[in-house]
Amino acid sequence: MTQADIQELLERRERLLGPGNPLFYDDPVHLVRGEGVWLHGDDGTRYLDCYNNVPCVGHCHPRVVEALCAQAGTLNTHTRYLHENILDYAERLLDKFDDSLDRVALACTGSEANDLAMRIARVDTGADGFICTNATYHGNTTAVSQLNSIFQPVGGYGKHIRMVPWPDSYRAPNGLDGEALAGHYADEVAAAIESLQRSDAGFAGMLVCPLFANEGLPTIPEGYLARVMELVHDAGGVFIADEVQSGFGRTGRWWGHEQGGIVPDVVTLGKPMGGGHPIAGVVARGELLDNYRRHEMYFNTFGGNPVSCAVAMAVIDVIDDEGLVENAADVGRYVLEAFRDLQSRYEVIGDVRGSGLFFGIDLVTDRDSKAPAADTARAVVNNMRHKGVLMSKIGEHDNVLKLRPPLCFSKDNADLLVATLDKVLAQL
Amino acid sequence: MTQADIQELLERRERLLGPGNPLFYDDPVHLVRGEGVWLHGDDGTRYLDCYNNVPCVGHCHPRVVEALCAQAGTLNTHTRYLHENILDYAERLLDKFDDSLDRVALACTGSEANDLAMRIARVDTGADGFICTNATYHGNTTAVSQLNSIFQPVGGYGKHIRMVPWPDSYRAPNGLDGEALAGHYADEVAAAIESLQRSDAGFAGMLVCPLFANEGLPTIPEGYLARVMELVHDAGGVFIADEVQSGFGRTGRWWGHEQGGIVPDVVTLGKPMGGGHPIAGVVARGELLDNYRRHEMYFNTFGGNPVSCAVAMAVIDVIDDEGLVENAADVGRYVLEAFRDLQSRYEVIGDVRGSGLFFGIDLVTDRDSKAPAADTARAVVNNMRHKGVLMSKIGEHDNVLKLRPPLCFSKDNADLLVATLDKVLAQL
Repeated sequence: MTQADIQELLERRERLLGPGNPLFYDDPVHLVRGEGVWLHGDDGTRYLDCYNNVPCVGHCHPRVVEALCAQAGTLNTHTRYLHENILDYAERLLDKFDDSLDRVALACTGSEANDLAMRIARVDTGADGFICTNATYHGNTTAVSQLNSIFQPVGGYGKHIRMVPWPDSYRAPNGLDGEALAGHYADEVAAAIESLQRSDAGFAGMLVCPLFANEGLPTIPEGYLARVMELVHDAGGVFIADEVQSGFGRTGRWWGHEQGGIVPDVVTLGKPMGGGHPIAGVVARGELLDNYRRHEMYFNTFGGNPVSCAVAMAVIDVIDDEGLVENAADVGRYVLEAFRDLQSRYEVIGDVRGSGLFFGIDLVTDRDSKAPAADTARAVVNNMRHKGVLMSKIGEHDNVLKLRPPLCFSKDNADLLVATLDKVLAQL
Repeated sequence: MTQADIQELLERRERLLGPGNPLFYDDPVHLVRGEGVWLHGDDGTRYLDCYNNVPCVGHCHPRVVEALCAQAGTLNTHTRYLHENILDYAERLLDKFDDSLDRVALACTGSEANDLAMRIARVDTGADGFICTNATYHGNTTAVSQLNSIFQPVGGYGKHIRMVPWPDSYRAPNGLDGEALAGHYADEVAAAIESLQRSDAGFAGMLVCPLFANEGLPTIPEGYLARVMELVHDAGGVFIADEVQSGFGRTGRWWGHEQGGIVPDVVTLGKPMGGGHPIAGVVARGELLDNYRRHEMYFNTFGGNPVSCAVAMAVIDVIDDEGLVENAADVGRYVLEAFRDLQSRYEVIGDVRGSGLFFGIDLVTDRDSKAPAADTARAVVNNMRHKGVLMSKIGEHDNVLKLRPPLCFSKDNADLLVATLDKVLAQL
């Protein structure tokens, strides 16, 4: 595709969808085909996908496509008729969780799942107030956008929201670390709970990604999550883990919250759940979901339909049969080691963090001051794209390289990624 | 499937999904296959589908399934990379609308579309207040559930909602009709606008289904919609037509609002858009959507992906190539005439209403008092199911038979429907 063709696509986009639709890279990427960890342009360009978690089992996995096509050609209705797929899938999914998480409600997007989770907490507590962090994003509905600290919601924030500092152990305040640091950040949560309890809103719960991925994927201070969950429970609140990014094997465990040593009250699921097919869900302690259902009818036309459930089942099958959770742990360690080697050679890398196949590389202008190097991060992301590797950046300071490849990422793929990053860093 | 098997499915459902999940019929229907207007049970039972609008081109239409499989096997990413499908589809979709509606935003569910439409109106007006009717349902997000008068939302209604009486011309107040009746109901909207303008919320807009389908699919008083839209505009508000049920040829026109002789500011789309695949959208005047996008980042991971757009394009192709809009008009008239014949023979039918292939049969215990016959409606729906015809009921009084078959419904199908309904009514 020529630059003129790309220009034409961009103009059509602006005319039809309006300006301001998010698009990756200074030179946007045009794609025609995907397979495994690879994405292809129409000119034969091949990109190593180190960004997309949605196709968690790899782009266009034949078993997932086959399950989709077989069910779509047979029956696709809604859950007001009886069908086995939703039950078989619910059983299979719940098997992956702690026994206390024994109910599921299916929806289509992570946004819908978080929106529903907030209402489950509201019904349970009779309160309205939520705690989230000060550098995150949880979805695009009106209610959920109140938890988005990265973008200001329409109409501004309501009085029922408290944003607490995310647990940053790299730029830790007062040089704290370990338990003292966990205590410092937990105190912030305690203060937010008290503030909500004193307000008209009351305290309904806390909703966080157990990896704090959008915040910058920090190395979470030991014990922080357990401490915070205890505070939430002591105050009668509901602890919601948004596993839209961290779930389905991403961390080398099935769920991100396992790494924090906690069992949340409610878990929300999305992105990788159907490998690209729009399915999402809420997994919760039975009494919470049942109590909610007594207060409000929840029906989702497409949620839990036979096709969505067939696809989602195929995703779990592939993760299990191809050992992708183990692969995420194994290749994840390998990549992390290689990134640490790069860190030893490039001053710009202030910190390397990771969990399974999810990595954050914190770029700094100076290792002592740890001043964030957002411009460098942007340059690296764009230069990597021109060398055939797709990735992005995250974090409160927009300076953390974000890498989150499909779970079938191999050590060979890792070698190519690391060699390319080495080149790009060398040319800075 | 034996009664014991059904019982087992119901128990698994309650255990995995919790009690209170909506399910149709006193004896729930178990389905294994769909084709055209037919749904099949595993015991060879065949049901004529007179309910489902989602598979608007018929269950498992081969062209739709083929488009789904071809694209799912090739590439499925998100809209932050460039791809033609979303642009081709947006162009094709906007071609079906008045020229003033020239921008589209894609999402996954009608709920998401309505949630977004409300924020578009909020940004445009700087106000919060919405008008809906007093007997409707528009979706399942926290914000949209405020417009659901059929079910009480969690936490109760906010002070920013005003519910106006839906335009009922069958049980019209004071025996009004025609322009006087339209004026009566429009006055209610004017009063609600004034009430919101006097409140802290202010007036953002009005969101209604242009057919008032959930309300009971009334014969809308002549000129009502145009009058109401003028009131909304005079007050600086945004008029949103929820075309989730009424869109895509259902009424024998492409859009339900055409029948009312209006062009809304914002149109929301869902259910039939992808024939069962989760795709939804907002079509709006460009300045409204662009203004919104300047205030809030909207990105939907699955929304507008290459697969969703390929499927949605196939749905439009089939509607056009098979002449389904014309079929809805033609067969719709045929069915309406047959229902009117039934009305002449059965006292229980108080009123017959319809628009294309969307029908409401208002059952009464007495034609003079027009007292709603909800129990009879329930019996008819259940008896029809046992005679192999699937339909449901709607309306403020839960007494209106609701029929909304796939758009490929033929006159032969209509004959079977009418003959079956005749038998069921005769046996009451």
